[in-house]
Amino acid sequence: MALNLPRRVSVLGSTGSVGVSTLDLFDKAGVEVEMVALTGGRNVERLAEQALRWRPQIAVIESEAALPELRERLKGSGVEAAAGAAAVAEAASAEVQWVMSAIVGFAGLAPTLSAARAGAVVALANKESLVCAGPALLRTAKLAGGAVVPVDSEHSAIFQVLDPTLAQHVERLILTASGGPFRCASLEAMRAATPEQALAHPNWSMGAKISIDSATMMNKGLEVIEAAYLFAMPPERVSVLIHPQSIVHSMVEYRDGSTLAQLGPADMRAPIACAFAWPDRLPWPAPKLDLVRDGPLSFEEPDLDRFPALALAKQALVMGGGAPAALNAANEAAVGAFLDRKIGFLDIAATVAETLERMERTGALTPSGEDALESARLTDATARHVAAEVIAGLGRL
Amino acid sequence: MALNLPRRVSVLGSTGSVGVSTLDLFDKAGVEVEMVALTGGRNVERLAEQALRWRPQIAVIESEAALPELRERLKGSGVEAAAGAAAVAEAASAEVQWVMSAIVGFAGLAPTLSAARAGAVVALANKESLVCAGPALLRTAKLAGGAVVPVDSEHSAIFQVLDPTLAQHVERLILTASGGPFRCASLEAMRAATPEQALAHPNWSMGAKISIDSATMMNKGLEVIEAAYLFAMPPERVSVLIHPQSIVHSMVEYRDGSTLAQLGPADMRAPIACAFAWPDRLPWPAPKLDLVRDGPLSFEEPDLDRFPALALAKQALVMGGGAPAALNAANEAAVGAFLDRKIGFLDIAATVAETLERMERTGALTPSGEDALESARLTDATARHVAAEVIAGLGRL
Repeated sequence: MALNLPRRVSVLGSTGSVGVSTLDLFDKAGVEVEMVALTGGRNVERLAEQALRWRPQIAVIESEAALPELRERLKGSGVEAAAGAAAVAEAASAEVQWVMSAIVGFAGLAPTLSAARAGAVVALANKESLVCAGPALLRTAKLAGGAVVPVDSEHSAIFQVLDPTLAQHVERLILTASGGPFRCASLEAMRAATPEQALAHPNWSMGAKISIDSATMMNKGLEVIEAAYLFAMPPERVSVLIHPQSIVHSMVEYRDGSTLAQLGPADMRAPIACAFAWPDRLPWPAPKLDLVRDGPLSFEEPDLDRFPALALAKQALVMGGGAPAALNAANEAAVGAFLDRKIGFLDIAATVAETLERMERTGALTPSGEDALESARLTDATARHVAAEVIAGLGRL
Repeated sequence: MALNLPRRVSVLGSTGSVGVSTLDLFDKAGVEVEMVALTGGRNVERLAEQALRWRPQIAVIESEAALPELRERLKGSGVEAAAGAAAVAEAASAEVQWVMSAIVGFAGLAPTLSAARAGAVVALANKESLVCAGPALLRTAKLAGGAVVPVDSEHSAIFQVLDPTLAQHVERLILTASGGPFRCASLEAMRAATPEQALAHPNWSMGAKISIDSATMMNKGLEVIEAAYLFAMPPERVSVLIHPQSIVHSMVEYRDGSTLAQLGPADMRAPIACAFAWPDRLPWPAPKLDLVRDGPLSFEEPDLDRFPALALAKQALVMGGGAPAALNAANEAAVGAFLDRKIGFLDIAATVAETLERMERTGALTPSGEDALESARLTDATARHVAAEVIAGLGRL
């Protein structure tokens, strides 16, 4: 039976790990796409290579300084070159059927909103879009006749086993977490942890920011926020379970005693394939799960004393308004300070908690206006400012 | 939101364990049903109790000798009493929206076909209906505008996670199996196994026949046949995986690298609830899964040398025609002979293999005519006859 796959597509953040995986999947699956836009951050060499292979209408590099080199590399290819945040957002709003939103960080929010406004199916890998502007993003996509489909393995798992018409029967969504490098560490060891120790993730090789988020479990806290928005679940119906093998990617527990789960090898391309072919499935030479080899599968309750980030994220979700965006920004600032050895490991969560408290006290968590993007930007900037003060107060270890 | 649950229902085999679980679920969930028929085998006291509680239009006991007692017990209740196989089949064909088909053994086939012909949603717990007449049953249900919904926990699991529109993308269905009491036994120990040893199942307390089927893994072999018919999968796409904890009830592996699974505590009422409320879900005070308490979850490949019944069942499926019915009948005869200490434990599978071989040689596996029920009956009788010869030839241990 012929598949009904998207044809006109864009990949935002094509030079990052999710972007590279997306293009690799297209290759491996032999799908024929009409590439409209590729956008990258700083890696102009890789972006140019991708553009010469995929022949998009336009290739955009975020760093304006890199434009001359991009132009030079694309000379004679017929691919238009552009640069800057505005050009990225413009490329994101091109009319496509499917867009991979894989720009890392707060910079991914504006292009994601642009893509949603254009009515595309948005395959969402950018965390900030949901954390900082979840309700607005989902409303925008719905109004434009598009959809937001998750790419994160946890949310993809839930997306695959949650029947939206049965949402009223859900007892809880269960996000699984590897537990990170400090799963078995004592609170004392965590207090003294160095960046090197915190960066040593057991199952995944990732960038520094996300590795530290995994060590504090703030990444899971952010995913709780994302899941609550994406699947329209109240905070108390989203829970976290430690699963060190990272084989069960997440679960949905229904009230009738039945729990549905999605399992698979740890390969980013699998959830990307799901997001691309949805509601169909994409044939590609996928790595196979081998439960005999990869098991047994074990589960533990998370320790909220050692991982207060989980409780903080839930708290931000309950507070609503700008709290999730503030949580995200304060965390980013605190992780930076930890990597710069300005604060200790446990100070990361403490900084976030104190930032949220100060901002709530001053009313800075109340959304400032109509525009979700501007609101999120303001909250983000304020939170970074407050977090910097908190960090300065904590002083050097 | 109000649920759209079946209202007019019948329970065939109401005095057996699945029947009792069904009525208990109705009680616990507080569903209001209009009970049309309850049928039981020999337990007239329990049937009468159930009839007085549920007030069906008719209560049928299969054993004709028990009719006077049933009449006596139901006197003045307004519930009609009847007896005999024909009365059971007639009760099964009453117009209802949902019928639980939970009569044990070959006797369940005729009433199940009757219920399917009447266009009801048939919640199927009777194995023989699919094994001995799967294609005919499913065709009958489809033509009548009804459906067959599985109650076995394994098939219910697949039913919950298999999107029928995506069947082309299924790599394989994975039926999980506890492995039974001889999971870790040597071939030598199995050769010398007594009925007492074979009856000691680790996870479930069941009747003698099904316990022995669990020890030989023929129960899983029969489930492979059921799954292949029910989900229209070729034999090579149905596999078995040992999972001693019996928490993952079965899985669907898609070709895109994603595996979907259903998990839950071992409670018959959970799949019954699914089958009853399908495509909705039934709120009831279900036992909860606790993966921290119940894990870790381990998996092993089945050993086909020690459990040849698995290969035999696949072989029967590939042979088609009357082979699955013959396999089932020969197995029943062989299990009886083993329980009577006439043959050894490993002789059970040997008897089935030899019976299939003899019947194939004489052309006795070719369906005899148009009528599925008559074909199945003839194959069943022939297989029992041939198996008896084989057993006599094997002699006493």
